[in-house]
Amino acid sequence: MALVVMKFGGSSVADATKIKLVASRVIEKKKAGNKVVVVVSAPGDTTDDLLSMAENITSNPPERELDMLLATGEMISISLLAMAINSMGQKAISLTGPQAGIVAGTNYTRARVKKVNPNKIKSMLAKDNIVIVAGFQALNAKGDITTLGRGGSDLTAVVLAAGLQADFCEIYSDVEGVFTTDPRLVTDARKIEYISYDEMLELAGSGAQVLQSRSIEVAKKFGVQIYAKSTFSQNQGTIITSEENIRRRKMEALLVSGIAFDKNQVKFTIIDLPDIPGVAAKVFSKLAKVGVNVDMIIQSAAVNKKNDISFTVSKQEMKKTQIELDKLAQELNASEVVCDEHVAKVSVVGIGMKSHAGVAGKMFEVLHKKGINIEMISTSEIKISCIVDERDLRTAVDELHKGFGLSRKNRSLYEKI
Amino acid sequence: MALVVMKFGGSSVADATKIKLVASRVIEKKKAGNKVVVVVSAPGDTTDDLLSMAENITSNPPERELDMLLATGEMISISLLAMAINSMGQKAISLTGPQAGIVAGTNYTRARVKKVNPNKIKSMLAKDNIVIVAGFQALNAKGDITTLGRGGSDLTAVVLAAGLQADFCEIYSDVEGVFTTDPRLVTDARKIEYISYDEMLELAGSGAQVLQSRSIEVAKKFGVQIYAKSTFSQNQGTIITSEENIRRRKMEALLVSGIAFDKNQVKFTIIDLPDIPGVAAKVFSKLAKVGVNVDMIIQSAAVNKKNDISFTVSKQEMKKTQIELDKLAQELNASEVVCDEHVAKVSVVGIGMKSHAGVAGKMFEVLHKKGINIEMISTSEIKISCIVDERDLRTAVDELHKGFGLSRKNRSLYEKI
Repeated sequence: MALVVMKFGGSSVADATKIKLVASRVIEKKKAGNKVVVVVSAPGDTTDDLLSMAENITSNPPERELDMLLATGEMISISLLAMAINSMGQKAISLTGPQAGIVAGTNYTRARVKKVNPNKIKSMLAKDNIVIVAGFQALNAKGDITTLGRGGSDLTAVVLAAGLQADFCEIYSDVEGVFTTDPRLVTDARKIEYISYDEMLELAGSGAQVLQSRSIEVAKKFGVQIYAKSTFSQNQGTIITSEENIRRRKMEALLVSGIAFDKNQVKFTIIDLPDIPGVAAKVFSKLAKVGVNVDMIIQSAAVNKKNDISFTVSKQEMKKTQIELDKLAQELNASEVVCDEHVAKVSVVGIGMKSHAGVAGKMFEVLHKKGINIEMISTSEIKISCIVDERDLRTAVDELHKGFGLSRKNRSLYEKI
Repeated sequence: MALVVMKFGGSSVADATKIKLVASRVIEKKKAGNKVVVVVSAPGDTTDDLLSMAENITSNPPERELDMLLATGEMISISLLAMAINSMGQKAISLTGPQAGIVAGTNYTRARVKKVNPNKIKSMLAKDNIVIVAGFQALNAKGDITTLGRGGSDLTAVVLAAGLQADFCEIYSDVEGVFTTDPRLVTDARKIEYISYDEMLELAGSGAQVLQSRSIEVAKKFGVQIYAKSTFSQNQGTIITSEENIRRRKMEALLVSGIAFDKNQVKFTIIDLPDIPGVAAKVFSKLAKVGVNVDMIIQSAAVNKKNDISFTVSKQEMKKTQIELDKLAQELNASEVVCDEHVAKVSVVGIGMKSHAGVAGKMFEVLHKKGINIEMISTSEIKISCIVDERDLRTAVDELHKGFGLSRKNRSLYEKI
């Protein structure tokens, strides 16, 4: 008898009809001979509705109280889902995050899970219950309800799967799995059958939001196998697992798994910074202090004891960054701060490139052939990212997707490079 | 420094504007030098909305899950109220029923409070917080959230006032207090300044729904003084306290405090029951077994070893009662079951009548003068109730209200009888 954790997102429990559909999915899984733990998010727009209730009271609510408010959303879905399953003749019981033994640190609104006490869930499973747990929420040491931040229900599912040593963690949503690139942009984007945690992390970090990054990290750490698939179809989804598992199954890793992109980027350049030790540190520690998250960074070679530093931030942080940089530029005697908000990031991701040279060269060649200018480059072991003009993004993604043979059903990329 | 428990009903926290008004009421009380604990119900129609969500899933939800669902309503009001108070510059913290230490028995949907562990509230008060507690909810021994039944927030307020040995328990609603009769029916109904627990119980039981009956019983048991008043006006309300307190303050108790009435009554008569021991017991134990709550009962004197039994039940239980009585009549050889749904109950209530004869006589005389036929009579130490034709109810209430001098500002009823 296997133990399976199933997680359903908010759009899967948005109304009574959908909740009943989820109930039947869960019952199928149970009847197939599994012990089943279900994690659900708040129904549909509930979280946004609750946030706007809070905004009508004050623009700056205490985070503890915000968590108390937001936790109600998931309590609504777990109780309704438990009712639906019971009405279909199976035993089901709902548990809040605190009741389920999910213990978090002291932060509110984006608490980190510290541990899981799975005893209550285990005893409920032993009594033949389907156990339904509220995602996104936890208990802190003060006895307060806290929440785990955006996408926190994924994290709940993964930590429960780890704590219960589940055989599988299934993440259901309204998309069918992980694709080689965004199917809304590239029509022949292909669903990926297997992908490694690291590739998935790079894809998520580059804007492919199938799964919350933190849950992938935790899944990797505890070796939780994730199966991402659609609530609304019976099609195969994507398995997210370790590199070793993938290599074992597929004999050889694919060179490139997918093309990710991110339009939410702004490029800043500080021109003519004095080339003395500690200047870069000063810039970035100052930005960190005001809460700006810097993504890519490039520093040019020094000329005349001056150099330029370029970096990207998200569009939301543009204003804050501009204000700080204007102060810093004066302080550090730089000549100018240039901001370009018409940029985008395109990334090629794949564990195969660890052991195969030539991916970067291929990427630059594809972009060059289409006359696309590369403004910045950054690389990791399994990812190469380029900043390009946002008007070139669509072409870039399309050409890279084709160039790395991702569109075709049967890929054999080794001959191609 | 006094400790005050303030309870606000759902209509007082129905929207952001009202929540802010409640917040300012609470802050006033705090600034007047009191420690303040606030109990709130779910906002406006939230509980009904949640119930209809459940109905869309199943007509017969497990009660445990219904409680999980309903508990979210109060969590919304407590967090929003805490936000409002904080935004006005005072420290406030919200607690669910379980967090507040309210422990209940094993029943769901109408759990009984077993005890209160007030330590958490005390430590929060000691840190200068206004403590906001979710009404209507508790924790049972299994660690489940349960609810206390209709009007349960009143009970939360009273048990907290008892557990914390509060100086006062203030119940705020959209009515200004307890009236000599329903002001919607009798325009010169007068607000009562002081009323005893027992009178209040009789008034509540007779359909005057200012306060949930169970909370009055608990208040009486623990000597919690209740002050019922309006959220939306600064007018004096009604103090509900012990008979001793009232006698001490007013020198002499009023003969009659109020006229209660109840249109939600149906009269059944079983005709020609054999007059043998145990027949009445058989009828009423059978009705109790199927969950019918019988109110007034009259048994006529036996004639020819047969007699009639009449009793009243609420309109909701009419069908169920009819079905049982038809079976019983056959089984017991009675000749007929007669049902009259066009009846109403009118009651005269007052602790003064304990020591003064003549109230019953006066009541019957007033009704007789207006040609109103009395179909059934029942009496307790502080109440006399009559069943009349529902078309006569308005006149009956009006005349009794005048007849016992309740309309006039300055009552001296002793001369009148």
